[in-house]
Amino acid sequence: MSDPFVVVGGDAAGLSAASKYTRENPDGDVVVFERGRWVSYAHCGTPYYVKGEVDRLTDLLSLSPEAAADRGIDLRREHEVVAVDTDAETVTVEGDGERFEQPYSDLLVATGAHAVTAPIDGFERDMAFTMHGLDSAAAVRAALADPDDPAVDTSIDYVDADLVERYAAMDPPERVAIVGGGYVGVEMAEAFRAHGVETHVFQRGDHLLSPFGESVCERVADHLRERGVELHMGCSVTELAGGDRVEAVVHENGRVDVELALVGIGVAPNTDLLAATPVELGESGAVAVDGYGRTTVENVYAAGDCAEDDHTVTGEPVWVPLGLTANRAGRAIGQTVAGDPEPVGEVAGTAVVKAFDLEAGRVGFVDHGDAREAGFDPVTESVTAGSRSGYYPGNEPTTVSLTADRESGRLIGGSIVGKDRAAIRIDTLATALASDLTVAELERLDLAYAPPFSPVWDPVLVAAKVLRGELAG
Amino acid sequence: MSDPFVVVGGDAAGLSAASKYTRENPDGDVVVFERGRWVSYAHCGTPYYVKGEVDRLTDLLSLSPEAAADRGIDLRREHEVVAVDTDAETVTVEGDGERFEQPYSDLLVATGAHAVTAPIDGFERDMAFTMHGLDSAAAVRAALADPDDPAVDTSIDYVDADLVERYAAMDPPERVAIVGGGYVGVEMAEAFRAHGVETHVFQRGDHLLSPFGESVCERVADHLRERGVELHMGCSVTELAGGDRVEAVVHENGRVDVELALVGIGVAPNTDLLAATPVELGESGAVAVDGYGRTTVENVYAAGDCAEDDHTVTGEPVWVPLGLTANRAGRAIGQTVAGDPEPVGEVAGTAVVKAFDLEAGRVGFVDHGDAREAGFDPVTESVTAGSRSGYYPGNEPTTVSLTADRESGRLIGGSIVGKDRAAIRIDTLATALASDLTVAELERLDLAYAPPFSPVWDPVLVAAKVLRGELAG
Repeated sequence: MSDPFVVVGGDAAGLSAASKYTRENPDGDVVVFERGRWVSYAHCGTPYYVKGEVDRLTDLLSLSPEAAADRGIDLRREHEVVAVDTDAETVTVEGDGERFEQPYSDLLVATGAHAVTAPIDGFERDMAFTMHGLDSAAAVRAALADPDDPAVDTSIDYVDADLVERYAAMDPPERVAIVGGGYVGVEMAEAFRAHGVETHVFQRGDHLLSPFGESVCERVADHLRERGVELHMGCSVTELAGGDRVEAVVHENGRVDVELALVGIGVAPNTDLLAATPVELGESGAVAVDGYGRTTVENVYAAGDCAEDDHTVTGEPVWVPLGLTANRAGRAIGQTVAGDPEPVGEVAGTAVVKAFDLEAGRVGFVDHGDAREAGFDPVTESVTAGSRSGYYPGNEPTTVSLTADRESGRLIGGSIVGKDRAAIRIDTLATALASDLTVAELERLDLAYAPPFSPVWDPVLVAAKVLRGELAG
Repeated sequence: MSDPFVVVGGDAAGLSAASKYTRENPDGDVVVFERGRWVSYAHCGTPYYVKGEVDRLTDLLSLSPEAAADRGIDLRREHEVVAVDTDAETVTVEGDGERFEQPYSDLLVATGAHAVTAPIDGFERDMAFTMHGLDSAAAVRAALADPDDPAVDTSIDYVDADLVERYAAMDPPERVAIVGGGYVGVEMAEAFRAHGVETHVFQRGDHLLSPFGESVCERVADHLRERGVELHMGCSVTELAGGDRVEAVVHENGRVDVELALVGIGVAPNTDLLAATPVELGESGAVAVDGYGRTTVENVYAAGDCAEDDHTVTGEPVWVPLGLTANRAGRAIGQTVAGDPEPVGEVAGTAVVKAFDLEAGRVGFVDHGDAREAGFDPVTESVTAGSRSGYYPGNEPTTVSLTADRESGRLIGGSIVGKDRAAIRIDTLATALASDLTVAELERLDLAYAPPFSPVWDPVLVAAKVLRGELAG
């Protein structure tokens, strides 16, 4: 009998690969080692659990350990792969108080990413959190709740009951700090405000959601302020000060007293496991892979938040740790390992975010520095147009920014922000990028028109018209 | 001085052309002859005026006659072009009690379409309507209202005050019939129900909204019934019976008493004006044009609901009378006539419709008969998936049907129906069609994911996956 397909990491990429593999090859063996208790959960849903819109933490599980077993996956939770030997084609595993070697026929490294907290000091204090993983989410929600709140549920198998009970027993905060104004920061501001706590967001740079570009950032910032969020822009936090518990956020120019601090300043790929192997990392620091998720070492694949993908616009490797691409790459690799090679697909950097009533999306190249580095001569135009016919109730100003390469006229990126069906419109641009459309071609698309959904000229078409004028001029 | 650019018809295509022409060529002369009083109005908004969501009829004007004059357009309302001489390059015009010849340098025929009522008898009776034009909309709303309703506004310059006052004076109907279950029928059912009247829809075939395909039609029919609309399917209406006023709808198998009947069984292009000219019509009966809107006669263009367009998928001429393409073709022709040739763009048959809380969209080839006639071997798969992450509030079942050509694997059409941001998702498919994407390419698009807007696998991606499986099998 041949050695099994071994997967390191039981989240989106890992379990997608294992599921697809067993479906394609029901007689094949696949073993998944997951160092934690949780598997295959919806990371992007955690702010809504904290907010209270999602009732139970287990609602966020895409695939329970039991369902994984039913699919024929040998899933070992609380088993950590501590070494990889690509010559011997084995991994070293620690779990159940044992340490053993596991040979593999094919190996998928799907170790994910971790939240970065450096260079902020004081992270060891109570009430200092990142929003990475379901245990963090459970702890933050417990910290906001009274001890008898039914939402504080320690009956779930996978939850860190001690952590949750400890936070539920503490006095809930009245003022909280969010350090970092990215997705996590913006979504968590909404979650905290839903609990009625005073919410401060600290952003080192001048813009929230900087990958979305200036036009989105400004509208999101205004809207957050309208909803009672206090923004501290251009403000670098150096320390979470206090005793056992966080008492203040310290920044370059002063301090703000808070009783809870959530840090979301970035993530980094988990690649330590591969340091002693010949598996190469890319320039981004994530694992370099080809169009089928293959690393530089035979029979070793990587996918998800620890790996690079090829960019839709440039074809060059980039590191964009997001959910769809992790799931898709995992599934493709499961199929490839099962004997039917499938490309993992490219990544366009498509992202959408909700900020209270505002929706925003972005795709491709938005930042001119990034675009120039990729060899483009970027030109951007922003247009604000109605989401519906002007006379139809619920028409909302929708700002579309499009970026093109001056010489070729090709669309290379864009963003959209508004309150009415704004985010999902980014899919039009994502499809256009994947198809190498020029701005002129975009302008001539036959997009939907009906008064309740779009004006005659959809905001995307209006923006294309204006950008095309600029390119021609 | 050269002869002016003459435009026949002052609606979307005609006034878009005239506006663009004067913008590009401020010293050029353009004359627009419109036989009615209304110009450039949002036809698609009329059901919402009748419903009461749009307050004033003038809210539906895209460009008032005064604004047209400000743009330098010589707009002559209540002037009918009754003949065209393409050899002499003149048109014969009747208006202001006169009849005169108007020479042209370039001519745009933008005469629109008219509502078909044949073979239904009794259309001369009071309370028998089509929903074509703002006078119809004003009359239907007046018919539904009490005479002192402030919505019955005869103070507007353009409105047929006699007609409106006459209908306002009649007893409002308690039961109404809609003959025809297309866009107009479905939208007007919503409008009538908003006034609390008993509403019967008669559809000759087995499906409402047949261009949207079966999966959409079934959900829309169920939803209309839920909202109290009585559907009479497979039921051909032969007569609107009564005395001076409509009293019943007569069909093959019986009659239904109603006090108002609205007929929306189709439109036909207005081409009579060209019958005595060498300008050729296409197979559809609409004016044949090339990619720049040029007819078969030099210096004569046609655009809007009277003209054909090239289809995005086949490149072959089709007649799809809808708003965006009329505006776009008009604008392109204005630019071309001004000396800077611009393609009118292709038409993908993109359409969206609201039916109470349900939204639906369609694009490209949905009907297998049509697809086969165009040379394809069509394969369709329908999938119902969530509009948001399953755990997120407001997740709604969204049905996506995709049609591909078996041999090439190319996407050739699709439809979407659901209650949550369903319609606007059709733009993703419209963009994919314009880009000749295969189903495999569609499946690998990096579409948006965030719990409030889309699950990890957008319903479009799920449908692509299933269809690709079917194509491979």
